Amino acid sequence: MSLRPGDEVAIVLPAAQLPEAEAGLLEDAARVLEGWGLSVAMRAERTHHFYLAGTDAARAAHLNEVMAEPAVRAVFAARGGYGGMRLLRHLDPGLGHVEKFLVGFSDVTALHLVAARLWPRVRAVHAPNIAARHFLGPEPEAERNRAALRAALFDPGYEVDEPVAFLREGRAEGPLAGGCLSLLAAMMGSGFVPDTDGSIFFLEDVREAPYRIDRMLVQLRNAGLFENVAGVVFGEMRECADGINDLREIIADVLADGSFPVAFGLPAGHGPRNIALPLGGRAALDSVSGRFRLG
Amino acid sequence: MSLRPGDEVAIVLPAAQLPEAEAGLLEDAARVLEGWGLSVAMRAERTHHFYLAGTDAARAAHLNEVMAEPAVRAVFAARGGYGGMRLLRHLDPGLGHVEKFLVGFSDVTALHLVAARLWPRVRAVHAPNIAARHFLGPEPEAERNRAALRAALFDPGYEVDEPVAFLREGRAEGPLAGGCLSLLAAMMGSGFVPDTDGSIFFLEDVREAPYRIDRMLVQLRNAGLFENVAGVVFGEMRECADGINDLREIIADVLADGSFPVAFGLPAGHGPRNIALPLGGRAALDSVSGRFRLG
Repeated sequence: MSLRPGDEVAIVLPAAQLPEAEAGLLEDAARVLEGWGLSVAMRAERTHHFYLAGTDAARAAHLNEVMAEPAVRAVFAARGGYGGMRLLRHLDPGLGHVEKFLVGFSDVTALHLVAARLWPRVRAVHAPNIAARHFLGPEPEAERNRAALRAALFDPGYEVDEPVAFLREGRAEGPLAGGCLSLLAAMMGSGFVPDTDGSIFFLEDVREAPYRIDRMLVQLRNAGLFENVAGVVFGEMRECADGINDLREIIADVLADGSFPVAFGLPAGHGPRNIALPLGGRAALDSVSGRFRLG
Repeated sequence: MSLRPGDEVAIVLPAAQLPEAEAGLLEDAARVLEGWGLSVAMRAERTHHFYLAGTDAARAAHLNEVMAEPAVRAVFAARGGYGGMRLLRHLDPGLGHVEKFLVGFSDVTALHLVAARLWPRVRAVHAPNIAARHFLGPEPEAERNRAALRAALFDPGYEVDEPVAFLREGRAEGPLAGGCLSLLAAMMGSGFVPDTDGSIFFLEDVREAPYRIDRMLVQLRNAGLFENVAGVVFGEMRECADGINDLREIIADVLADGSFPVAFGLPAGHGPRNIALPLGGRAALDSVSGRFRLG
């Protein structure tokens, strides 16, 4: 599946509300998509419910509506933050026949996990939430993020080929799974757990102390998510250092039992570069070439 | 089951290591227990493995040893921190025949959950980790914490009767379950999940932003842990405010679907008072009297 100019898409706010000072970014995001030739419907409210962009019922209604609409070929999360996992019981399980992209990251990982179980024809794309500076800004990295997402959506030949460092060497390939570690951990127990068997399991996070990264990885380990992975690749782990403990040593320690390759440093997640990663796409890790490839 | 003077007990460090400057608190804790007439074995190492008090294998070996020893009638965690849930695959499931207390809180919640499934005759007591100032200090609150734990262990008639505030009114009673919210959330997916059906579910935490408290409660909700509770009581929620959102409103929102009473303000958890709560004990909430009772 690829987008074509003229296609309809929608922008939603399934989790946090934007700060008042950044409200204009919603329109900026719509303009970027219109610049790609897309016809954009805004399905986001300016109301607050605590830090959320409206009540759970209201946010879920928007999401269900655009997921159900066959003409909508892609749904973009404007922001993450927190709140997607509050929607679980409001989401319509009967939307599995509608093929479309669901684009976002961070809190949107919760919705990617839901889609993988409830909506099998939805293609999850791990990419910037679009009403944010790292997608809209003038910086070269933001420009690359825009170009990567556009290519991931429009170009059937979209590929990723990036250098990564290896904590444990090896070669592996499999479908790409994963997302934000905090959200993966927070979804444990919900039933919406990723199928990591045979996969390249991608993980990233931001502002979590090393013992918390440890705890979340151990949680996934205790749930068996590393038992049959083909390989693990970490993206940005921004502001996760504490100046005392070496995060890479901790990760190696938690994953010491396996023999799968473990890589570090993919420019995806909460950093200036956040390349588009179509989940479910064919991914490969190779410590000889020192690269991650996708597509 | 109650302790008697002359009984053997053990002190362990199943999770974090003490800072060097506080190493003497281990001996201080032993002296308090000896003052109660107990014979104390120290099963804690001064080694470091990151922030942990030794490797997982070493910490688990100490814990398995004292849990297996019939003469040891109580096992006290000296400290929490983080690390109990790393021990899961090292713990001996064949210790269910040995009756004893397992005392601690915070990270020790993970071990309480394990005990409830693996070691059915172990009595979990939610009470201070003993090598800490809120148990050892000269403050009146610490003195009360010591007196409460001593009574919980030695006095078969131990009772708790404390005023609490009600977010939702009602009367309920049932066995007490629960512990530290962060650890309950982090144990989801492990299989060691508390049985909250018909229970008074106790939750406390420290230094977690409101959206994180929200996220963890939603995680437990998504796992069905609030579906059949008799009531919910929050203990200390220390440094969990952000100055913007009202934590009680958020809690009420997450638990809005139920009709069970929800209380707030039990002096247990990460505050100066941390009263001993024998888990599994008969607990009651009553919004007419405005009280929590146990025993």
